[in-house]
Amino acid sequence: MACISSPDPVYNFAAGPGIMPREVLRQAREELLDWQGSGMSVMEMPFTGEEFQAIQRQAQQDLRELLGVPDDYRILFLQGGASAQFSLLPMNLLPPGATADYVDTGHWSRKAIAEGRRYARINVAASGEARGYRQVPDLASWRLDPQAGYCHITSNETADGLAYHWLPETGEVPLVADMTSDFLSRPLAVERFGVIYAGAQKNIGPAGLTIVIIRDDLIRPARPETPSAFSYQVQADSNGRFNTPLTYAVYIAGLVFRWLRREGGLAAMAERNRRKSDKLYAAIDRSDFYVCPQHAADRSRMNVCFHLAEASLTAECLQQAGAQGLLNLKGHPANGGLRASLYNAMPEAGVDALIAFLQAFAARHA
Amino acid sequence: MACISSPDPVYNFAAGPGIMPREVLRQAREELLDWQGSGMSVMEMPFTGEEFQAIQRQAQQDLRELLGVPDDYRILFLQGGASAQFSLLPMNLLPPGATADYVDTGHWSRKAIAEGRRYARINVAASGEARGYRQVPDLASWRLDPQAGYCHITSNETADGLAYHWLPETGEVPLVADMTSDFLSRPLAVERFGVIYAGAQKNIGPAGLTIVIIRDDLIRPARPETPSAFSYQVQADSNGRFNTPLTYAVYIAGLVFRWLRREGGLAAMAERNRRKSDKLYAAIDRSDFYVCPQHAADRSRMNVCFHLAEASLTAECLQQAGAQGLLNLKGHPANGGLRASLYNAMPEAGVDALIAFLQAFAARHA
Repeated sequence: MACISSPDPVYNFAAGPGIMPREVLRQAREELLDWQGSGMSVMEMPFTGEEFQAIQRQAQQDLRELLGVPDDYRILFLQGGASAQFSLLPMNLLPPGATADYVDTGHWSRKAIAEGRRYARINVAASGEARGYRQVPDLASWRLDPQAGYCHITSNETADGLAYHWLPETGEVPLVADMTSDFLSRPLAVERFGVIYAGAQKNIGPAGLTIVIIRDDLIRPARPETPSAFSYQVQADSNGRFNTPLTYAVYIAGLVFRWLRREGGLAAMAERNRRKSDKLYAAIDRSDFYVCPQHAADRSRMNVCFHLAEASLTAECLQQAGAQGLLNLKGHPANGGLRASLYNAMPEAGVDALIAFLQAFAARHA
Repeated sequence: MACISSPDPVYNFAAGPGIMPREVLRQAREELLDWQGSGMSVMEMPFTGEEFQAIQRQAQQDLRELLGVPDDYRILFLQGGASAQFSLLPMNLLPPGATADYVDTGHWSRKAIAEGRRYARINVAASGEARGYRQVPDLASWRLDPQAGYCHITSNETADGLAYHWLPETGEVPLVADMTSDFLSRPLAVERFGVIYAGAQKNIGPAGLTIVIIRDDLIRPARPETPSAFSYQVQADSNGRFNTPLTYAVYIAGLVFRWLRREGGLAAMAERNRRKSDKLYAAIDRSDFYVCPQHAADRSRMNVCFHLAEASLTAECLQQAGAQGLLNLKGHPANGGLRASLYNAMPEAGVDALIAFLQAFAARHA
């Protein structure tokens, strides 16, 4: 063993599940067979026992402090991912026959809209489709329904590489956001939202865990056909003890929250994420070889989507990147091209390595 | 570090999440930062990538071989636990207005019945309630409805310590079983069932993962209000790729399936579980100090529920057991007393240690 040299670092640019902080994984490894002298792995702990209850409480409290979640909002640790929330949101928030506003900014808002239509009248208040999802529709163009049960946005479009860098004002209509792919990547004015939800597998932890942050006055009886385990009210009333929670994922998320606090919190993350993405977008924009069609003001800092001007070189580019340890750069199947996901855990060195590779690849094919 | 002596072993008798095989946890620790030279933790892998797809395929195949699942059954790796299935089962299997038979054998069948009533007319075909849930109702007493959409049983009552050691014949009506707490504890005639479902947190892996094994002809469009992510048909058609699966839990479950195969499969488990539970029940029955009221023929081999003849000593007994590393022996809140869960991963040495403790405790209080 001693003679084997340390392997070159690998950088995982997957859109999610994606890269996690090494420190978190190392701590998880350390504690895997014995959490703090309990003799048990966290995976083996009864969820009603003192140990796990302490883990869950701490995770909730750290998340509340990180995000500055006001006291009149509940934090729920649920299951099923954002795709399940596409249904559970209207089931929990809208009476039958109600209308909701949705803004269509790309692949994932379309999914939310399609599923939402199964439960409610959906008013697509604005859509970026006609412009090829290259920008977030201007607020001035939104046709909001003042009677809508909520207004739904997708704060970051993972497949399209678009993000909101501003917040819409929706008056009395609660603003609801799918934040799956940019949650915890920057500070957030939680009080501007009625509900925020996010699947964990980008910046939080293992896939499946789903965080719902909901203002107290929106917690109400769900539609009668809603499975009890997926009722926000049932889960809020039982403090997540109605059924067995995703204990191990909650634990890992808690380690991530601690890591974020040690790293300086969300302001530090935002600064880091701005620097990483600015650098990569600048390298793309400087070259004629790579193209990022997204409107500069609306580009995602999490998912940098771009393509090669000569599309026939894409497969070769991905193959060579992979051979150098730059993994999972393939674009979303709906859009093709390349996508570099720069979640919180992606070190700046990974972005530097990617830029160096892209420049060398372009030079070889000039 | 070198001077610290190895701590006494700890035995975790929790009802679930519960004890997991040490070998599995050791392998998970080994691979936590780098799965097989990929440079990634399984938690970080894109679920559509080759690595995770291989992990998922292998887990499915191992489970199919372990259980002898016939070719006309699908194995689905879902989310939400058994409590969610209490709703999703009728939503997926029963048209509105349909009837289903449920047999009430204790705490968890009552939960399934209560949730089922929100979706269908439930015929309680038999109930052990009048006899204090001390035995599984005799098949001769079941009043089955030949028009029922299915007949639901709870193969092992975790809170009550009862189990079926035989299978009912339900004719054309599909037999459906919640096997959360005895899945993989013994060989199973899968072909006798229409649907088998199980939450993972007993004998499979981390909480949240939910296994549904369903006969092809029962896969049909779910009720219109069913969230797409929870439709058996949608999940079967997409081979579990409709939304991000519980990737890390699927991986751990796969390690457990491999461990089961190495240990001799389900016949070996059944023999081991029979030996462990026989030994503990015999010790309880031999003593006047401890009482197990369950009918001998229907006792669970997974959850040995008993109490102290002198109930006022229960807290002291639990406290002293814990101090000796015999953890989580408290009975279900609904029933009180003690409960020793003897899942596959509980070594016989743990049962021996428990018996020795119980005898010593009784002797001290004789």
